[in-house]
Amino acid sequence: MSAPLRAVALGGGHGLQATLSALRQLTTDVTAVVTVADDGGSSGRLRRELGMLPPGDLRKALAALADSDADGQLWATVFEHRFGGSGALAGHAVGNLLLAGLLEVLGDPVEVLDHACRLLGVQGRVLPMSTVPLDMAADVVGLDSDPDAIRTIRGQVAIASTPGRVKQVRLHANGVEEPAACPQAVEAVLGADLVLLGPGSWFTSVLPHLLVPELHEALVSTTARRVVVLNLVPQPGETAGFSPEQHLAVLSQHAPRLRVDAVLADADSVPTPDRLRAAAADLGAQTLLDKIAAPAVPERHDPEALAASLRAALERRTDRWR
Amino acid sequence: MSAPLRAVALGGGHGLQATLSALRQLTTDVTAVVTVADDGGSSGRLRRELGMLPPGDLRKALAALADSDADGQLWATVFEHRFGGSGALAGHAVGNLLLAGLLEVLGDPVEVLDHACRLLGVQGRVLPMSTVPLDMAADVVGLDSDPDAIRTIRGQVAIASTPGRVKQVRLHANGVEEPAACPQAVEAVLGADLVLLGPGSWFTSVLPHLLVPELHEALVSTTARRVVVLNLVPQPGETAGFSPEQHLAVLSQHAPRLRVDAVLADADSVPTPDRLRAAAADLGAQTLLDKIAAPAVPERHDPEALAASLRAALERRTDRWR
Repeated sequence: MSAPLRAVALGGGHGLQATLSALRQLTTDVTAVVTVADDGGSSGRLRRELGMLPPGDLRKALAALADSDADGQLWATVFEHRFGGSGALAGHAVGNLLLAGLLEVLGDPVEVLDHACRLLGVQGRVLPMSTVPLDMAADVVGLDSDPDAIRTIRGQVAIASTPGRVKQVRLHANGVEEPAACPQAVEAVLGADLVLLGPGSWFTSVLPHLLVPELHEALVSTTARRVVVLNLVPQPGETAGFSPEQHLAVLSQHAPRLRVDAVLADADSVPTPDRLRAAAADLGAQTLLDKIAAPAVPERHDPEALAASLRAALERRTDRWR
Repeated sequence: MSAPLRAVALGGGHGLQATLSALRQLTTDVTAVVTVADDGGSSGRLRRELGMLPPGDLRKALAALADSDADGQLWATVFEHRFGGSGALAGHAVGNLLLAGLLEVLGDPVEVLDHACRLLGVQGRVLPMSTVPLDMAADVVGLDSDPDAIRTIRGQVAIASTPGRVKQVRLHANGVEEPAACPQAVEAVLGADLVLLGPGSWFTSVLPHLLVPELHEALVSTTARRVVVLNLVPQPGETAGFSPEQHLAVLSQHAPRLRVDAVLADADSVPTPDRLRAAAADLGAQTLLDKIAAPAVPERHDPEALAASLRAALERRTDRWR
């Protein structure tokens, strides 16, 4: 029996949930590498109250990889359950609170996540991109009467919802730029057969991985097949009006040495395929246009369709490359 | 191989933790039947915010029965961990929050507790005495200038800390007296070989079980050996100044038909053994005086010593009966 495909997906939020749901159909060896710069919602409240790693994107990745048996699905449901009402707990996801408790007891986020993986029956692993909470800052234009005036916007929520145009994002940990990567995440990228970047909020969930220097180097130097999965619709706020090729342009701008093997996009979400092919070629990538949107929720990827496309990308089946 | 001894311990708080720790040394078939009238601390906050069964005493019982392996002990530690600081989560035990989440997802407290038992590797079972949150009321004297004036004090915390003298306690669920018992708890008492009542806060953790009619009947009619374990020191507030024999007198007053096989007390905590023996005999019980206080924490029972005494009580080894 040959070893299973070693797949790593980098991202955060619903985009990462989609790639993880797809990858688990291809292999049992899936590692999620998750952004830890969130400062909103339940995660932001826990981060401010307890000084901890924001747990929300980690929790979503755990739920996406939970075993499909009754026990795994029960714990995934409990992890994702949010308290209602109007009290002190309202809006907190149960999994966030449990991860917070594990973190306070164990200290090491990697150990915490390995325990959570066992609870949910995850085959594979969920890792933070850094073991300390990170802060984001972005250079944004279009917020002033002078269209070239650059303002620094701070915080993931503020950047994701800015009405301005994001030019560049930066990460720091306690004011220090170039935050340290989680070593196990670097190892996972270096040892992978397949690495997925995206989909997701481009500036706040996808690009942050390239702003952690050791992770950036690992992505540049890994022998894995690198696939960028583009979003189906521009994100209101941070990428309002962005074309698919503009997504690749900002990726390249934040990681000029990064080579990509394939760019995967939904055929119906690409208004100018030739421009996308050109932008992908600049990264060294072939372009794969396929039907990967969920029929019922067209702004979400369909895990089955995404899995089929990824299988084609891995097998270099050029019949699917349009 | 003969079936393991079926042991049931009724109570709440640290007293129940002590009997559960002792019983697990005697058998693998331990059922905790736990009070659900708490209205203080983390439990009280959750009860008010979410309308749920107060989880604190259930959580303590789960932790006491957790598997002694690394995994069981980690989860017990996480369950018992309380968030610090001064934020919205300060003081909440992680296990309470997880039980709250499981309850919101599953609905049925017995199912919730069975899942929690599996997580903690519990051999045995933790059950609530009732599946709905209960409220306590007490008739208390000594709060007014007229020493015979009776006042009704409401709520477990208020009763446990009253400077007056508790005469009688009552339970109700949503204003209705005679709350329904958890059916599985009734079954456990009826099917047991050994039933332990106490130690613990006498009026607020031990007697409440006798105020649930079906549980009361089960305790009266079970063929199990019934052992009452007395407290080491009077509880400040609800039983300040109470002698061991007074504890038995109020037990008898709340359950005149209850017969007891043995009363177990710490030899150093009984100032007038003859009076205790007489009070026990009124309940049909023999009196076993033994050294069962923890050497380092004399107000807590020592689980090993308690286990040895219970073994002697079960074997009717009269050499230990002083």
